[in-house]
Amino acid sequence: MKVIEGGVTAAKGFTAASCAAGIKYKDRTDMAFVFSKKPCTCAGTFTSNVVKAACVQWDQKIVYSGDPMHGVVINSGIANACTGKEGFDACEATAKAVEKTLGVPFNTVAVASTGVIGMQLPVDKLVAGVENMSKTLDDSIDAGTAASKAIMTTDTVNKEIAVTFEIGGKEITLGGMSKGSGMIHPNMCTMLAFLTTDISIDKALLQEAVSEVVKDSFNMITVDGDTSTNDTLLIMANGESGNEIIKDKTDEYSTFKEALSYVCTFLAKKMAADGEGASKLFEAKVVNAKSKDDARTLSRAIVGSNLSKAAIFGCDANFGRFLCAMGYSGADFDQNDVELFFESTNGRLKVFDKGTPIVFDEDEALKIMKADAVTVFVDMHEGKEEATAWGCDLTYDYVKINADYRS
Amino acid sequence: MKVIEGGVTAAKGFTAASCAAGIKYKDRTDMAFVFSKKPCTCAGTFTSNVVKAACVQWDQKIVYSGDPMHGVVINSGIANACTGKEGFDACEATAKAVEKTLGVPFNTVAVASTGVIGMQLPVDKLVAGVENMSKTLDDSIDAGTAASKAIMTTDTVNKEIAVTFEIGGKEITLGGMSKGSGMIHPNMCTMLAFLTTDISIDKALLQEAVSEVVKDSFNMITVDGDTSTNDTLLIMANGESGNEIIKDKTDEYSTFKEALSYVCTFLAKKMAADGEGASKLFEAKVVNAKSKDDARTLSRAIVGSNLSKAAIFGCDANFGRFLCAMGYSGADFDQNDVELFFESTNGRLKVFDKGTPIVFDEDEALKIMKADAVTVFVDMHEGKEEATAWGCDLTYDYVKINADYRS
Repeated sequence: MKVIEGGVTAAKGFTAASCAAGIKYKDRTDMAFVFSKKPCTCAGTFTSNVVKAACVQWDQKIVYSGDPMHGVVINSGIANACTGKEGFDACEATAKAVEKTLGVPFNTVAVASTGVIGMQLPVDKLVAGVENMSKTLDDSIDAGTAASKAIMTTDTVNKEIAVTFEIGGKEITLGGMSKGSGMIHPNMCTMLAFLTTDISIDKALLQEAVSEVVKDSFNMITVDGDTSTNDTLLIMANGESGNEIIKDKTDEYSTFKEALSYVCTFLAKKMAADGEGASKLFEAKVVNAKSKDDARTLSRAIVGSNLSKAAIFGCDANFGRFLCAMGYSGADFDQNDVELFFESTNGRLKVFDKGTPIVFDEDEALKIMKADAVTVFVDMHEGKEEATAWGCDLTYDYVKINADYRS
Repeated sequence: MKVIEGGVTAAKGFTAASCAAGIKYKDRTDMAFVFSKKPCTCAGTFTSNVVKAACVQWDQKIVYSGDPMHGVVINSGIANACTGKEGFDACEATAKAVEKTLGVPFNTVAVASTGVIGMQLPVDKLVAGVENMSKTLDDSIDAGTAASKAIMTTDTVNKEIAVTFEIGGKEITLGGMSKGSGMIHPNMCTMLAFLTTDISIDKALLQEAVSEVVKDSFNMITVDGDTSTNDTLLIMANGESGNEIIKDKTDEYSTFKEALSYVCTFLAKKMAADGEGASKLFEAKVVNAKSKDDARTLSRAIVGSNLSKAAIFGCDANFGRFLCAMGYSGADFDQNDVELFFESTNGRLKVFDKGTPIVFDEDEALKIMKADAVTVFVDMHEGKEEATAWGCDLTYDYVKINADYRS
């Protein structure tokens, strides 16, 4: 597997466009469009929030129906959640605009939104945006990068990646982009992610691969514990690489899943590090847990705790907060089995040894915690399972960003 | 029932003392002692965190054993959590110091701690504190108030209350104090609370009353979603009022439970409003829910959401965030049934009407949200149960306080 330049337009047959539709922002692009002329096998995972945005319900219908997908239209101004019937009409109007401009059935066009909840979308601006973007679809790397920028909200950097790998002598490309910065918490963490690939694969297998990979990538990041109404991950596979279709869990399937895992983990970590107001990436690695579920639960609790996040911001080696978060996570364990370390590129320091605190050198701890990425490493000594979760620190800027988000 | 002046020393036969033991702070009191010469029937509720502080385990042994309780010694410098065997030895040394000074068995003396996790207590200072306080125990209101100040950590105000009511011609007094500001989240929310009463009541009934009342008072507040290792509520009843012992769920029991509910709700709300860095009280009232559990879950999710809390801080009527939090709370409901209002002493405004946002006057919303206490009122239209939860806004000061708590 090789990492290459690009994102959603890296795979054969995928084009992208973006435009400034004036939905929320005045000085920047706020709509994006990813399109494949060839119909795609599609799969997706969606928010577990019972209050689902209109667009989530729209996309679920396409993904679950077995119909192919030709593309997705995204806006980053208004979430289209809590918007009643008018919200559904906006989804349909968007998809029908694509049917009109590009001749594909409207029920093969997904829509995605992110932004303010509880406001209605300006349908005329959406439709104008679709008309504009349909004329400028382009398979260049730049077009993909521009799309990844158009879907940003409070993100400070765009997030895209592409990889290639070989299956049965054919070069396969898998690329993607994502956005997500606030309202981020597992299942699905609040985020939009769009992946494109030219592989040929059975729909059920594609869904299974995505559902499994998400568990250890996107669902292992948290910024603020708020699971959004709009979380959506869509993957479209148009088969243009010409590989023989993958129908079983063969070695080829494993190769694809490995690449998918790499891409999803890359995008997930990038989102965690770009959490609203974040000054650093905060990683928790739990090893030797009783079960995989315990390992995931414990590592997510550590990076999800406001008190832990504030300590990471302050470079305060207040390790009791991490043990405390593990304690209320829901996983059962004995504190007398636990070892806890702080790690970064600046060093590694044990601070808690099976029930007893270790007197450690505060200067050394400070040096470790001042790095751009800090890991809390926990050995449970109770089993063989492990998991890693990613988050960020809690800063003044998080509060500032969210105290007046609408204005 | 009548609210009277005082706290833990209001009921007959209870004395209190406090001192500056130098455990953490240099310029203030950091130990308190509440004592009844007459042995007390006792009950308590404790943190659900599986990492329980040494003192929590110590107190559980007394409460669950059926032994009487004579008092509790509290320090507000070091939590005595994650401290291994040395931590248990510190509890025993404290209780044995009381046995030596006051002649009551050491296993009738509870201990409680709040402060930094993972540090060992200085036993010599604890014992010196007990010796000092044993000589200055006093039943005055001032002594109770001084104790309520000595147990504060990042609290900005002390919290105490006392009430009187009549049972069988006898005047009963119930008083209490609590502390709690950060690391506050249901089950038990992170806090210490100590209640004293001169009622005579069966131990099992006392425990049942406390366990039930806690569900709608202390367990309905949240500051930061972090459930502490040290949460403890203790109630001591010494029977000095002379009432005939309450052994059944009579009218007298109901009268007592009502007073207990008043006292616990008062202290709980006071803690929520004094959440670390808080600028205002944030209340969520959910009515007409399918079940009591749903009502509690939904209201707690609203006040527990970082995004909701930041919006309350910014006086931003971003109601979608409250619906979003309800959506991921775990309770199942249909957004098309829901009505949502903002309320305060400055007015009441409907913003969401059964699936559809209402276009509202932003100036009016701002006026309502600028009050010192803001309520999100939600009518589920799905049943008959209701619950209220309390929290506070998320401010710059919360981050500041917790970024360098240890220093």
